[in-house]
Amino acid sequence: MDKLNSFVSYNGVQEVYQHRSETNKCDMTFAIFLPPQVKSGTCPVIWYLSGLTCTHANVMEKGEYRQKASELGLIIVCPDTSPRGENIPDDKEDWQFGSGAGFYLDAQETPYQKNYNMYSYITKELPQIISDNFSVDLGKQGIMGHSMGGHGALTIALKNSKNYTSCSAFAPIVQPSSAEWSKKAFQKYLGDDEGLWRQYDATLLIEDGYRFNSFLVDQGGADPFLRDGLRPELLKELCQRVDQPLELRIHDGYDHSYYFISTFMDDHLAWHNEKLRN
Amino acid sequence: MDKLNSFVSYNGVQEVYQHRSETNKCDMTFAIFLPPQVKSGTCPVIWYLSGLTCTHANVMEKGEYRQKASELGLIIVCPDTSPRGENIPDDKEDWQFGSGAGFYLDAQETPYQKNYNMYSYITKELPQIISDNFSVDLGKQGIMGHSMGGHGALTIALKNSKNYTSCSAFAPIVQPSSAEWSKKAFQKYLGDDEGLWRQYDATLLIEDGYRFNSFLVDQGGADPFLRDGLRPELLKELCQRVDQPLELRIHDGYDHSYYFISTFMDDHLAWHNEKLRN
Repeated sequence: MDKLNSFVSYNGVQEVYQHRSETNKCDMTFAIFLPPQVKSGTCPVIWYLSGLTCTHANVMEKGEYRQKASELGLIIVCPDTSPRGENIPDDKEDWQFGSGAGFYLDAQETPYQKNYNMYSYITKELPQIISDNFSVDLGKQGIMGHSMGGHGALTIALKNSKNYTSCSAFAPIVQPSSAEWSKKAFQKYLGDDEGLWRQYDATLLIEDGYRFNSFLVDQGGADPFLRDGLRPELLKELCQRVDQPLELRIHDGYDHSYYFISTFMDDHLAWHNEKLRN
Repeated sequence: MDKLNSFVSYNGVQEVYQHRSETNKCDMTFAIFLPPQVKSGTCPVIWYLSGLTCTHANVMEKGEYRQKASELGLIIVCPDTSPRGENIPDDKEDWQFGSGAGFYLDAQETPYQKNYNMYSYITKELPQIISDNFSVDLGKQGIMGHSMGGHGALTIALKNSKNYTSCSAFAPIVQPSSAEWSKKAFQKYLGDDEGLWRQYDATLLIEDGYRFNSFLVDQGGADPFLRDGLRPELLKELCQRVDQPLELRIHDGYDHSYYFISTFMDDHLAWHNEKLRN
């Protein structure tokens, strides 16, 4: 594992690493913030899954999570959003598929199934790497994300409810198997079996009986992608119907950007921290 | 004046404008954060001057100033660091001169004197534009900056001590007329008369009798540019010798990046706010 960058910040350290991924068969990059509390013991970890077109760097630079994470003693890991590299199949014309658009699933279709295994990477390989190299308590994991990463956080928490203590999302794609934003990518990664698509769709997983202790979801009321991609009302109606706890907050005037995310980042970290410390 | 962007953030609004500058004879771009308090009256303004290679956007995206500015009711204006455009003389090979390197001075030499007038732009033209268009109290102005922008903040405050109530800097170039980083640019903008150079050099202005009520300066102890560009010890020794109040803090391990700036941003805004509210 190579350390690409290290910056002292808020009395902790913000670092960037690159490592060979066996799961994705390529080099993968991630950012990790280590709060000062790691010097005296293990800390809980929160996984932050980013959205379409992002790398590890967007939230690292614009997410404004370090002050609160330093105060609360939380490790924050920000993975990349897909495999990348010259030998990775991609469609450079399509920002909703391929590089920057791994959708946190394990692809089944050729030629994507060799490299596009972000679900296994996030749930198995990367936690092992973090555990092997940093002072982390894997008994205390939270997961969160934005947009496509919000979809990732919700689905991963639902399917691995024993591994994660807390889950939240900013402007998540709540039903990617039917959203204009993501339907095409699901077809290319997973093929025509829509039964398989259900395995990576938060609302359909809940319909199929999966549950998580509680979700916090923040959504900008002026988000331009409400209709084509996000559709929080689908999640709200379903959670009410089946008694899945959900705190959904709509914030007037806020859009889909990091100016929105950063505004509510402290709230999310405090939400995770409260659950992780109980 | 054209509004290029507007983002709701931290209950205020982060905007970006472009306008024709009479001073620089080109279009200039600036960012402005308007806290929620502007809805009910005028607010103090803090000018944030950025460093070499930056535009208005770097600190807007990475500076993490909105939370505290929103809490305290401070308008934050982030100007560009130079004139820009096809018709503006530049040296694309030199990151320490021309575009992104206006050094907050009024050039005297041909062909730079027509456009490179950042001193007059920051002290006269832009305050008038902000005053004409936003709910700002120009009787309450603070000024701060980073690196080349720290030099700008210190020199502008020293030369206009009645106009600014507070001044602070992150890792400023304290003696640009003799620093490797800036000597060449001073020669190209100002010519060979080193008497003129003194007008844009914080330590030499203090030697020449200029004073300001008090400076707060934060400096990373692991900043790679300490010797060639910054040299805070020159400012410290001089201020002690002539009784110019200065709070200089050296922070072990911190470098020259926005990871350093953002860590201490809240401290600086609180410093300004305390002086501006008295």
